[in-house]
Amino acid sequence: MPNLYKDVVAANELYAQTYTAQPDAFAHRHAAILTCMDSRLLPNEFMGFKAGDIHLIRNAGGRASDDAIRSLIISSKLLKTNQFFVVHHTDCGMQRFTNESVQEVLASALASSVTYQPIDWLTIQHGLFKSVLEDVTKIRNHPLISSDIPIYGFIFDVMTGKLIPVDEAIRVGKAK
Amino acid sequence: MPNLYKDVVAANELYAQTYTAQPDAFAHRHAAILTCMDSRLLPNEFMGFKAGDIHLIRNAGGRASDDAIRSLIISSKLLKTNQFFVVHHTDCGMQRFTNESVQEVLASALASSVTYQPIDWLTIQHGLFKSVLEDVTKIRNHPLISSDIPIYGFIFDVMTGKLIPVDEAIRVGKAK
Repeated sequence: MPNLYKDVVAANELYAQTYTAQPDAFAHRHAAILTCMDSRLLPNEFMGFKAGDIHLIRNAGGRASDDAIRSLIISSKLLKTNQFFVVHHTDCGMQRFTNESVQEVLASALASSVTYQPIDWLTIQHGLFKSVLEDVTKIRNHPLISSDIPIYGFIFDVMTGKLIPVDEAIRVGKAK
Repeated sequence: MPNLYKDVVAANELYAQTYTAQPDAFAHRHAAILTCMDSRLLPNEFMGFKAGDIHLIRNAGGRASDDAIRSLIISSKLLKTNQFFVVHHTDCGMQRFTNESVQEVLASALASSVTYQPIDWLTIQHGLFKSVLEDVTKIRNHPLISSDIPIYGFIFDVMTGKLIPVDEAIRVGKAK
């Protein structure tokens, strides 16, 4: 086994020695966060949450993909969360790519015989305020997301650790 | 503003006071983790990682959805990770639901006039060993995931904090 696998197993053995199980499966602060997979982001820490508090949905960019919306519907309709936060971040990889540049990287890395279904890479082309606004709006307008769930938009600044509110993207209550 | 929003802003102000920026955007342990959005899971902690180490992809169930695979492709082809971990967990909400039961909850909560595209909810119907194996296999067989990336499968036990390896689901190297 390579080193990383062994490191994970060893770290987990230590972790389990002082682990305390949560009493139940609910998100006790009744909120779901959608954010990026970026390695630098510690959303529980930068938003003040702990184990048992919130659902954390993460993907490349923190985008409101169909799958992120599947998770938000499960979170709210079946697991009773009632507030959402969408958090993109500065220096995001998805700002450096376009659908075309991703395709070029793939084409140069792959044998020409490899075929695959086209993918929308959900890159960020018009700035983070726009991408947060776009994603909050997409979630707000989904027919399976209750209109009384507030959705808050933020940008996390990886240089300062600060959350910048995207006020235009706040979509509270029935005001669709 | 409701209390949760104010709490997040206050917690973030404290966080930023002692924040140290990571030097760059890479995942320094060159790995990506796919796991569930469940509020009890602290994957960095239970696997021994810290800020800057790994990409974290999370959704309802930790399933290998098309969007999780989009993120894994971005992670490996563009951001140079070279190992993947798929981690499902005991007492997962997605084990308690079926596509049919989700539809029933939605039907009872929604006005009959609400229409929407059908969604595969990716519930877990045949146990966690099977769901981990299924997802590792799906990622392994995707034409845009390099066959030399090892993919490790685990179940996180929420009662003990321990990772249980799903040995059948380990897919290392070229052995497709």
